[in-house]
Amino acid sequence: MADPFYIVPETEHNALIAAAYSHRGFLPDEAEEGARFCASASRHGIRTHNGIKALHLDHLFGSGSKGCVPGAQIVEKPNRFPSAKIWNANRKLGQATAYRAMAEAIRLADQYGVGTVSVDNAFHYLWGGGYVMDAAQKGYIAYTNCTAALAEVVPFGGKFPTLGTNPHSWGFPTTEAVGYPIVIDWATSVVAMGRVQQLAREGKALPPDAAIDVNGVMTTDPLKAKYLLPFGAHKGYGLSLINELMAGFIGGSLPTIRNRWDQQPEEKHTCCFFFQVIHPEALSSGAFSLGRNQQANVQAVIRDVLGHGNDKSMLPGQIEADFARKSAAAGGLLFSAAEIGAFNEIATEIGRAPWNPSSLKTFSA
Amino acid sequence: MADPFYIVPETEHNALIAAAYSHRGFLPDEAEEGARFCASASRHGIRTHNGIKALHLDHLFGSGSKGCVPGAQIVEKPNRFPSAKIWNANRKLGQATAYRAMAEAIRLADQYGVGTVSVDNAFHYLWGGGYVMDAAQKGYIAYTNCTAALAEVVPFGGKFPTLGTNPHSWGFPTTEAVGYPIVIDWATSVVAMGRVQQLAREGKALPPDAAIDVNGVMTTDPLKAKYLLPFGAHKGYGLSLINELMAGFIGGSLPTIRNRWDQQPEEKHTCCFFFQVIHPEALSSGAFSLGRNQQANVQAVIRDVLGHGNDKSMLPGQIEADFARKSAAAGGLLFSAAEIGAFNEIATEIGRAPWNPSSLKTFSA
Repeated sequence: MADPFYIVPETEHNALIAAAYSHRGFLPDEAEEGARFCASASRHGIRTHNGIKALHLDHLFGSGSKGCVPGAQIVEKPNRFPSAKIWNANRKLGQATAYRAMAEAIRLADQYGVGTVSVDNAFHYLWGGGYVMDAAQKGYIAYTNCTAALAEVVPFGGKFPTLGTNPHSWGFPTTEAVGYPIVIDWATSVVAMGRVQQLAREGKALPPDAAIDVNGVMTTDPLKAKYLLPFGAHKGYGLSLINELMAGFIGGSLPTIRNRWDQQPEEKHTCCFFFQVIHPEALSSGAFSLGRNQQANVQAVIRDVLGHGNDKSMLPGQIEADFARKSAAAGGLLFSAAEIGAFNEIATEIGRAPWNPSSLKTFSA
Repeated sequence: MADPFYIVPETEHNALIAAAYSHRGFLPDEAEEGARFCASASRHGIRTHNGIKALHLDHLFGSGSKGCVPGAQIVEKPNRFPSAKIWNANRKLGQATAYRAMAEAIRLADQYGVGTVSVDNAFHYLWGGGYVMDAAQKGYIAYTNCTAALAEVVPFGGKFPTLGTNPHSWGFPTTEAVGYPIVIDWATSVVAMGRVQQLAREGKALPPDAAIDVNGVMTTDPLKAKYLLPFGAHKGYGLSLINELMAGFIGGSLPTIRNRWDQQPEEKHTCCFFFQVIHPEALSSGAFSLGRNQQANVQAVIRDVLGHGNDKSMLPGQIEADFARKSAAAGGLLFSAAEIGAFNEIATEIGRAPWNPSSLKTFSA
C-alpha cells in the first residue's frame, strides 16, 4: 500500500480502549476484554471491527442506547442437557460475553466432545472470526453465528429488508498443518452497508446483485442502493435465515425491530449468539492413509485442494495470518493516519493525551 | 406442468427399488432403507436423487465399483467423548448408514443436548436434505455435510477442480410454526454437472460464474463448460472447504482421487459424512416475548421475515413440502413418463414385471 502504517504497541492501544470503556461505566474485566478483542482484530488487519468501530457501535447501539449495559452479569439458565449451556447475557458487552461463551464451549468440548453455548439478550460481538480463530489457535473446531444489529438485507424474492447481515464464522485448528488456523468468516449479504457508503464516497460502482433501490430494482449505483441482498441468491438467504432461526429458538426478537427500542416495547430488541466447539479428537477415525496423523492428513487434503496449478487460490484466514505476521514484525498494531486521528479523538474525549504521530514508528508493508 | 404425472404407490415403488438393491447383494434391511429413502426423495419432488439416480450411482461408484460393499457392517470406534460417535462405515450403503447415524445423533441430543456422528469410509448418501428433514420432522435441529464422489469444482482463484460439489444441509423443527420443517440444503457449486449437461441438451446458457472452460475462463456455454465454480466466490469456496476439512479431520481422502480407485492405491478413496443434532430445548432461554412458547416465537420471527411486503419470498423447504402435499393428495409417488420408462428398465433387468403406464392413475399438478 502507498502510505506507511503507524505502529502502536498493543499495551498502549489496549490502555486507551479499556479507558474509553471504563469511562462509559464498564467494569475493569469488561474493559480489558473489550480492548483485548479490538487489539486482536487490528492485529489481524480487520479494520472494519477495530477499537474505533467498537466504541462507535457501543455509542450508537450499546451503552449509549439500550443495547448494552455496563457491569451486566451473565445468568446461566439451568437445563437438563450436560453438553449445552444457555445464557442470559443481560446485554453485557459483546466481547466479554463471547470470550466467556467460547471458553465455556471449549470446556464442554473437552468433556463431551462437542459443546454449545446459546446466548440470549446479547450485544454485538463485532468480529465472529476472532472468537473462532482464538479457539482454533487453542486446538478446537469452533463455530459461531449471531443476529445482527439492524435488518438491512432483503430475503431472496422479497423487497423489504427483514434480515440482518447475519454472519457465520468457522475456525479450524490447522496451525500444524498450514501455519495458521483456517477461518471462514463472512456476512451473508454480498457487501456491508459500510461498503456501500465507502463506494459512494469514492464514486465507484457496487458489484451486481449486491443491492436494490427504493423500488426493489437491483442497482450497482451506491447512491441509489437502499437495501442489501444476500449473496448467492437463495443460498445466502438460507444461510442468513439460519441465524434468525437459531435466535428464534433461543429467545430472540423480531428482526425488523432489533435495536429499535422505540418500536413495539412489549417485544425484545436484543441479539442472540450461538457458539459451538468440537474437540478434533471427537471426530477422528484414527485411520489416516500412509500412517499420517490427523494434522498431517488435513495438510495432505489442503495440499491437494491448493495443488494441481491452484497456487493462486488462497485459504480463508490466510490474509489475516499474513497481517498478523506483519504486526508481529512491526512490534505493534498498524494504523493509518486517519485511524490515529480517530483514536486521538477518543483519547481527547476521555481526557487522555493523544498519540503524537511524529513520535510513533512507522511500518511499510 | 404440461404433462400429468403417473402415480406409483409407495409400496410398489419400494418393492422395486428394494428388489434391485437385493439383486445387487444388499441385505434386506439395507435394501429397505435404500428404497425408503428414495421414496422420501420422490415424495418431496427431489427428482435428481430418486431411485433411478440412486441405483445408477450405486452402479457407477458403489457396489458396481469399489465405493460400496453390500452387507458391510458399521464399526464404532471407541472414544472418550460421550456426545460424539465415530463410525467406520466400511463402505456400507449410504442411505442405511445415514439413517442410522442420524438416529444415533438424535439419541445423543436427547441425552446431552447436542450430538455428533462422524463417519469414515462412507458411500454417497444421495440427498442430505432428506436426513435433516426427517430429523426436523421428529423435532430436532439437524445438520449434515459430506464429501462428494468426485472433484468437479475449482477453488476460488484456482483453475483445476479439486473440490466436490460438497453440500450442506440444515433442518429445523418448524412444523408447528409454519406447517413443515425448514430445510436449507444445497451444493456449494453454482450448478451441478448434471445441470450443465441438461442445459447443453436444451441449447440453453449457463448462469454467469457457474463454470469455466478448459483454459480456466468463465463461460456460459454449457458445451464449453468443463469445470464448476463455487457459488458466491470466496464464500461458497469456504463452505465447500469446510466439508473437505471435516472429512480430513475424520480420516478422509484427498479430494482429487476420491472414488478414483485406480489412482494412488496406497491412499483412501472413500467419502466422509458428518451429522449433528441439537435438541431444541438445549437452546431455549424460555424467555420469549409476550408469553410465547418456542414454536410461537419462531413463527413470529418467520412472519416478520416474510412480512412487510415480502410475500413473494419463500422459505427453504416450502417447495418440497408443497410437493409432498401433492404426493399425499395423489396417494402415491409422482413420476413422468420418462421416469416410468427408467424404472421399467430396472424392473426388466432384475426379472420383474414392468409397470404398465396405461394401468397407472395420473395426477395433474
